[in-house]
This record gives sequence, C-alpha cells and structure tokens, in this order.
Amino acid sequence: MYRTNTCGELRLSDVGRDVTLAGWVQRTRKMGGMTFVDVRDRYGITQVVFDQDAPELCDAANHLGREFVVQVKGRVAERASKNPKNPTGDIEIIAKELNVLNSSEVPPFTIEDKTDGGDDLRMKYRYLDLRRPAVRKNLELRHRMAFEIRRYLDSKGFLEVETPVLIKSTPEGARDFVVPSRMNPGQFYALPQSPQTFKQLLMVSGFDRYFQIVKCFRDEDLRADRQPEFTQIDCEMSFVTQEDVLQMFEGLVKHIFKYVKDIDFTEPFPRMTWADAMKYYGSDKPDTRFGMRFVELKDLTEGSGFSVMDEAPYVGAIVAPGCASYTRKDLDKLTDFVKRPQVGAKGMMWVKYEQDGSIKSSVGKFFSDDVLRTWLERGEAKPGDLMLILAGQTMKTRKQLNELRLEMGSRLGLRNPDEFSCLWVVDFPLFEWDEETQRYYAMHHPFTAPNPEDIDMLDTDTGNVRATAYDMVVNGNELGGGSIRIHDSKLQDKMFRLLGLSEEDAQYKFGFLMNAFKYGAPPHGGLAFGFDRFVSILAGLDSIRDTIAFPKNNSGRDMMIDAPSVIDDSQLEELQIKVDLKED
Amino acid sequence: MYRTNTCGELRLSDVGRDVTLAGWVQRTRKMGGMTFVDVRDRYGITQVVFDQDAPELCDAANHLGREFVVQVKGRVAERASKNPKNPTGDIEIIAKELNVLNSSEVPPFTIEDKTDGGDDLRMKYRYLDLRRPAVRKNLELRHRMAFEIRRYLDSKGFLEVETPVLIKSTPEGARDFVVPSRMNPGQFYALPQSPQTFKQLLMVSGFDRYFQIVKCFRDEDLRADRQPEFTQIDCEMSFVTQEDVLQMFEGLVKHIFKYVKDIDFTEPFPRMTWADAMKYYGSDKPDTRFGMRFVELKDLTEGSGFSVMDEAPYVGAIVAPGCASYTRKDLDKLTDFVKRPQVGAKGMMWVKYEQDGSIKSSVGKFFSDDVLRTWLERGEAKPGDLMLILAGQTMKTRKQLNELRLEMGSRLGLRNPDEFSCLWVVDFPLFEWDEETQRYYAMHHPFTAPNPEDIDMLDTDTGNVRATAYDMVVNGNELGGGSIRIHDSKLQDKMFRLLGLSEEDAQYKFGFLMNAFKYGAPPHGGLAFGFDRFVSILAGLDSIRDTIAFPKNNSGRDMMIDAPSVIDDSQLEELQIKVDLKED
Repeated sequence: MYRTNTCGELRLSDVGRDVTLAGWVQRTRKMGGMTFVDVRDRYGITQVVFDQDAPELCDAANHLGREFVVQVKGRVAERASKNPKNPTGDIEIIAKELNVLNSSEVPPFTIEDKTDGGDDLRMKYRYLDLRRPAVRKNLELRHRMAFEIRRYLDSKGFLEVETPVLIKSTPEGARDFVVPSRMNPGQFYALPQSPQTFKQLLMVSGFDRYFQIVKCFRDEDLRADRQPEFTQIDCEMSFVTQEDVLQMFEGLVKHIFKYVKDIDFTEPFPRMTWADAMKYYGSDKPDTRFGMRFVELKDLTEGSGFSVMDEAPYVGAIVAPGCASYTRKDLDKLTDFVKRPQVGAKGMMWVKYEQDGSIKSSVGKFFSDDVLRTWLERGEAKPGDLMLILAGQTMKTRKQLNELRLEMGSRLGLRNPDEFSCLWVVDFPLFEWDEETQRYYAMHHPFTAPNPEDIDMLDTDTGNVRATAYDMVVNGNELGGGSIRIHDSKLQDKMFRLLGLSEEDAQYKFGFLMNAFKYGAPPHGGLAFGFDRFVSILAGLDSIRDTIAFPKNNSGRDMMIDAPSVIDDSQLEELQIKVDLKED
Repeated sequence: MYRTNTCGELRLSDVGRDVTLAGWVQRTRKMGGMTFVDVRDRYGITQVVFDQDAPELCDAANHLGREFVVQVKGRVAERASKNPKNPTGDIEIIAKELNVLNSSEVPPFTIEDKTDGGDDLRMKYRYLDLRRPAVRKNLELRHRMAFEIRRYLDSKGFLEVETPVLIKSTPEGARDFVVPSRMNPGQFYALPQSPQTFKQLLMVSGFDRYFQIVKCFRDEDLRADRQPEFTQIDCEMSFVTQEDVLQMFEGLVKHIFKYVKDIDFTEPFPRMTWADAMKYYGSDKPDTRFGMRFVELKDLTEGSGFSVMDEAPYVGAIVAPGCASYTRKDLDKLTDFVKRPQVGAKGMMWVKYEQDGSIKSSVGKFFSDDVLRTWLERGEAKPGDLMLILAGQTMKTRKQLNELRLEMGSRLGLRNPDEFSCLWVVDFPLFEWDEETQRYYAMHHPFTAPNPEDIDMLDTDTGNVRATAYDMVVNGNELGGGSIRIHDSKLQDKMFRLLGLSEEDAQYKFGFLMNAFKYGAPPHGGLAFGFDRFVSILAGLDSIRDTIAFPKNNSGRDMMIDAPSVIDDSQLEELQIKVDLKED
C-alpha cells in the first residue's frame, strides 16, 4: 500500500488524520521558510507543506523537480488561506516523511490544461499529454459513456457479441486493411470496415438483440477528422419496424444524456424528413440548436430582369436576426466566405430591414421596396433583421446556404457546445442517381428496405422511392444511422436488378449473406453510432482526436510509437510477401 | 411491432390474453385433426395449436417447414397435457392468424442441442449452429460475464481505455500479424499480441487504474486450443504492491462467480508458491479440485539395488484412493498412458495397500513389505488405496506425474466441471536458464520486478531470485497472471544486463518504453485474464471455441466466410506489395 488516500479526497473533516499520499509533483514554491509542494494524481491535487523546523525534509522537498513521483506521509491540517477553486483547497498536509519513488527529466511541455506544447510535440509525448486534466477528462467521459451504453442496452435484453477482426476482404474492399496469413501463404485477412455482415448473420441466428462497442478500420485518406481505426456502437434487432428501432435508440441517447450529463430530455426527439432537411437546412444533418430556416423566394423574384435570379432554378435566403446593422465591410466578409472554394457560391445578395422600417438591398435596383417587402414577409423578418440570399442550382445552392447559415449561427453565438439539440432525419431516398455512370446507387447499402408505402414505385418512380433509413443528428453532427434491412429474397433480387447488378454479380459480391438468408431470415434492422463522435459532442470538442487515448495523425501515423514502420526482411520472408514500391 | 410477447414468457396467468408471437418453426406435428407448431426464439419455445375447424389456417400450418419464420396471432389457453420441462409448458396459443415472414430451405443439420451435424458442417453454417440453445447459452454467459467484469472494475475506479489495434511490430515480433499501410508504402502496422506497452504508458500518464476487454492477435500454429484472435481482460494499477493486486482481482473473480453463477466464495483463495506447485503437483497450474498431492520417496528407496530408482534423482508417487482393486489390465492401461509420447515416462511402478492390510507391488522383489509400508505411511494411504510411482529426472518426472494425477482425477470423477477451485500461484522464478544458449531468459517479461527480499541475490544466486509474478489458476487452467513491474531505471538496467542485453540492444528493443519511464513512472503492476478461457471454465467447456461466436479452425481459417483468401491484384498494387510464394 503506497497510499491511504488519493490526492483528490481529503477535506476539512479529515483534519488531524495521519495520511500517506502518492503522486506527481505539480509545482513547488518556497515561502517564508516553508516549502509548498502540490502533489497531483488522477483524482486531484493536494498541497503538502514542509517546514524549515525539519531542515533535512525541507531540503529534500526543495530538490524535487516537476513530475517527480513522490510518496508523502503527514498529518492533515486546516489551511490558513483556503483555495475555494480546489476541492482539497481547505486543507494541506504537514509532511513528516518524503520518499522519492521516481525522478523525472524536465518534461518537454507544461502539464497544465493550457500547455505550451504544440500539437506535434503533444502527440509525440502523448503519455505526458494524457497527464493534463483536460485530456484525461475526455477519456473519463468516454469510459462513463461506454459503461452507460452497455448498462442501457443490457437492461433492454441486448447481448454484446464480439465479431471477428480477421475477416475476408470484400469485393469492393478498396479501403480494406489487409493482413497476410503466415499459415495460409498468399492469402489475406481483411480488417472490418463494420461488422454489418456479422450482425445480420446474428439476426439469422436468432440472437434477436445484438450490440457491440467495436473497433472498425478504414484505409483511406484522413481528411475531415477521421481515424484509420475508429469505434462504433453497432446494434441490430429482429422482428422490428422502423418505429421500434427509433424508440429504442432514442431511449439510449436520452439515457446517456441523463446519466452522463445530467440532462433530462422529457419530450420525444423531433423527426424531420430528408426532403425537409434539404429544403429548410440544405443538409441531411441540420444543426437545430438555432432557427434561420431557409426561405424559398424564386416565385417572388420573377420578371425583374435580374439575370442572376432569373437564370437560377433556385433562390433561397436566411434571415439573420438583428444583423441589419452589418456594415459594408461585414457584408463583404460574408461574401468572401461564401465565395471560398470550400463553399463555392458566385456571390451573395442581401436585404436589410432597418429598425425604422426602411429597406436597403444589394439588389435594390432590380426590385422595388414592395417586392423586397414580400421577401421579408415570407422570411418573417422583423425590423433590424438582415436577409442573406443565394441563387443557383437547387442542391448546390442549398449546400452553400447551409454553410452560410452555420457561419451566421456561429457568429451570433447560437451554437453553444453545452446545449444539445437531437433530431431524427428519416425518409432518406433509397437510391442516388449517378450522372457519370448513368445508373442508380444505393444511398445507404443494397440491403436497406424501401419504405413499404413506396414499393409500387420501385419500377415507375425509382428515384423518389424512400428508404426505411434514419440518421440521428446532434448539433449538426451525424451521430449515426441505420435502416430496416430487406429480409425477403424476391425484394432483394429486385433491388440488385435496379442497382444494375446481374445475378452473377450479386452472387459474387453478396452471395455469402444471400445464402445465409435462405435459412429463415427474420425481419430485422438496426443502426450504428460513431462512438468517437458521440464522445466529442458530449465533451464539446471539435475533433474526435482528443477522445482517443492514442490517436493517429492525418497520415495515419502514430507519432508516439512511430508506426507504421518498415519490418524485418525475415518477417516478410516468413509471410511470403515482398515490398514492391512504385517508382514516382 | 411484430410481436406482443417473446416465445419464452407466457404463463398460466396469461390465459385468455390475445397475443402475437414471432419466431422459427422448431417442429410441427398433426394429431387428431389438430396441428401443433412449436415456435422458437432466443427466449424459449411456445406451442401453437391450429384447429381443423379453421381449415385454411390449419392447411397453412401443415405446409410450414422446419426453420420457417412465422408470426402467429392467437389466444393463450391452458394446456390439457402440460409439459413441466418447458417454462411455457402450461399454456399454448390457439391460433387465429398465421403469417409466414420467411421460408427456409431444409437446414443441413438439426437445430437441437444434440445435433446430427459434424464439426466441419457446424462451422461452415455457424449462423445456424448459433441457433442451437446449447451454443447460444455460452454467448449469453459471455455477455453476462463481460458486463459483470465491467461493473466490478468500474465500481473500483478503473477506467476502460481503448488502446490502438494498429501498432508497431516489435523487434521480436515473429508472431505479429502485420498490416501494410497504403498511405505509407513499404511500411507496416502490427496487430497487438497484448496492450502491455500501452497499459504501462497509461500508468506513466497517471491513469492509476486501467482495464480493457480487448482483442489480441497471435500468428502462430494453433495447437492447444488457441485462436489467432483472442480476448484479454487487461488490467493495470499504480502505487500498488503484489498484495493490492491480488486482493483486487480475487475480488473480481469472486464477483463473477457470485453474480453470474450464484456461487459465493467467502474464504480467501489459497495461495501456493510456484516451488510448492511444482513439488506437490508437478505443474504451475494445479487442479486443486482434488488432492492426490505428490509424495517424494527417494530417501526411502535407497540401497535396494533397484537401478530404476537408484539412478533416478527423483522418485515421486500419488495415492489413488480406493484403487487397490485395480486389475493387472487396469494397471497396464495406466502404464500405457504414462508411456504415451505426450507424457513420456519409461514406466510406472505401483504398490497396492489391500483392504486386508496386505501389500502387493510391482517392485516387491526389490523392497520388503516394511519398506513399502514406509512409502504408504508417508503417502497417508489407507487400506484399499493404490500408490502409483514414477522415477527419473526431477522436473520431467514431476510433469509426468502431473499427467498421471490428472488422469486418475478424471477416472475417479474428481474433476466435476460444476465445482470450482481457485488458487493463486505466487513466487514464480524471475529467470529461466536456457541450456542451449547458456543464458538466462525472463520467465515472464523483462519488466517484471524481482521479489524485494531477493534483490541482493540478483548477482550471486540469479537462478533462485523470485519474481513478484502471480497466476490465477482455476480447476487446473491458467486463467491469467501478471506481475509488479520495474519502475526504477537502475534496477531495469541491471535486469537487462543479467538477461545478456547490451545497452544498445535494450535501447533498440525497449527504448521507447524506457524513454517514457524517464518522465516519472510510478510503481505499478497488473495482470491479464484470458477472457475466452474464463468463459469456457464457467460454461464447463473443454475448448474455448464454443465461447466465440465466429471462431477459426486450427489452420486459422474461418470456414463460414472462407477467410483468409486471395485478394485482387489491384489491391496488392495499391498497397505496393507482392505475393512471393516459396517453392516447396
């Protein structure tokens, strides 16, 4: 036993007790013949006092360096000057004994929430970075969330089943990581991009309710805050309709908010069709913490002779509350924002509804105040508001307007990371039309069931068939999604045909699962949540990286252990493979 | 909603209720104009009755095949002839409606606990094998155990931290699976054989109490009931001594037995030194469900002129209770057993202590009854017992005697899978001497701390230094083990030197961890339990295979998905590797 207590638990009620603490030296300072040492562990920081009356002890304390590991024995005493910011700030330990358990070299950056270490240095010394309470708290949150997810799902009769990590490369497995097999030379395993096949097989097996918090793998370029290995909350249920799945997992999300963040969602989560999400937010993952829904103006812009609007199939706007006071400079900045290549608009128009009821507009020479007033009315603008307008191709312009809306939301402080707005997006299209190859692709995957109401439209109005697919969106982030799967082999055949797959193709690509389905597949469906993302949302982080103990950088490299790396020739030889580098 | 109830929950108190069930057709039988259909799901089996008064419905029921998926609506009724073996056996459903949700081809084996399917067929159609209650129960047990492990460790302040799966190949990584990186051509990740390095880094990070239920990987020949991917319960603690670790994880094992098997271990688990385990059981994982401890007889066999014993440095025996009645044939069989190459003894000697007090022995011509009686006395044999004796090299003979003891335990029915005997084996040697290379190797790993009492012996009596390493043994299976790690760099340097590693070697092999240790490593230690083995012990299974949903066979092959497999040339090209098969 190296300690009787942690560095986070002693209080006024412990005064007078003899205790032993162990931890790291956060800082030491000398003051009026005393030496104060702050000792830190995972649980907190406790101040230890060394008095000059014990000169040897005091001298030893004066020789402690930052991050030394120490054991201190002493008596708990009330502090003269208390520190209300620290839970242990009412007390200190009067040291009677000091043991240096380990020394430390000077760390390359300060172990504080606000550190002087840059990103690269922090990643290289991640084991020191993880000592910073701000980073450790994310992983404590991650643990708590995983635990509560399991507690909820267990209480609902779900079984956690581990599916294999060494699986088979799929025929479309361009993003598969592969693993050469020493025992089966020339053959490879693949690491799963998801346990999709296995969870459907478990439904065929009658497992009824399955889940797994599981690592998945994707060998792709890591733009956009992705990691080559990431963690999914993977779930599947049998004998369910979409409604059953939504209820179950809405319950899960509410449970997490309640037991992890102490936030009670008493109302059902709102649901929005994919069509409405695109129409009002230009995104299938709208941030519903704030309004500024799109207003469509096309019909009110006809016949003015203003070619930008006349030639555009779509004219859409948002109303930014209280922004009529924006200066020309402010507006130019917004125009620059929408013209950035990442957004891609050609320009932006605006109408100011001044406090005094007058109107100013960048398109005032094309439209009368009366016309502009019809726009403002449709947008329910109030005096003092600012309408921002984009025009162009429908889907493209909606996406641009979405970017503008999010930017305005941020500028107006409407995207508070401590506020949470959850939303189901439902009725996704079943198919996506690809102009280049002139054929339909499955928007979700080819096993997603069509909406039963739309089955008659499969042949006649293919592009408008809705899927029984759904996404959970929180604060503009896709937390995850899923679908009801097809369990009827005739319907599945039809889907393959609509996707342009011959029977041979379908057999080659999906034959294994199709064969399993011949032995009594139940109706089933499920979803998967991105666990890293889930943690980052609750932690209020922009990136998933600090929800992961040992993340990789954008090149898929672990800077700390320096992986990947070259391996010994003898290892390659045993695996019967060769490196075969392309010349540049 | 496809159902109002599961097939396992309806009871007499539900009689009269209208219900909807869904599940698989277990069997159908016609009797006196009625058709009985047993419908099965994960939760149980319920009998459904179709009456000839509804001829269409009855006809549909008569056309159901095995494993069809059906939905049945009807009213719960009391059965005339109840089935006490089935929890739903008091009731049946009088069918009003039958919907066939899916048909099924005839499965390749029967879906019963006692199936007609052979191992290969079962593995190929694992998704059907998993429908068998006997197999499903193992996975339900696995889920329950994982949940309770997490509940216990969470309550003790442990954090579950996910460590990376894509790591770096170790310099001694002959058994590493490797993964080529597309983004870093010519470089490879490795899959972890254990998270050992990462858990020690987490201790350096101050995480204090870490655990993870985690997949590990080993590319080795799969004799001895091993799997290329297996699951560990991996744990580490800071500021602890061996005693702290033993207490904590003895608590874990007791918690699992209590909450999963309803078995209360109220006494502390016994502890046995490695030396005693070898002396009394010839094994570092003795099966302590039964006695038959070894009796050493060498000193009682001197001077008889019987060369087999005179020339052997070791003579050891076990006393098999009540086996004096063994016939010559029985004894010959046992002799054959110990002479099998897997055991490797040259022969076996025996002494029968007959019920009437007389003595018979295979070595009666070399030893007087008085001498034989001293052997029996030492073995505390009673009339009717049989003493079995082996002689030879000490360690070799002990191992042979261990095999014989286990065989006798099985024959005498002393190895009941429903009885559990847990044991800590402690004080393992720190080093193992290798005759071939004439040097010491670390028995556990080079970071294992020596027993503090033996530190002075490191140079003078190296081979007898004890490690602070420990194993948990249950019913003769090593459930897992661990050690206190060295956190002092001087002691670590000394260890490396004793292991014959130069500073350069040590830096090359372990430099990364050693560098991390320079920044204030706390005293720490931990252990890892084999989760698959833990489940198999509680399930009473001989093999770990049926504790795994989708296991691989002895060639590391998943027979169901047929992995590993060849991959596309385009994939190899993108990874910039080539298959380079050796000629035989």
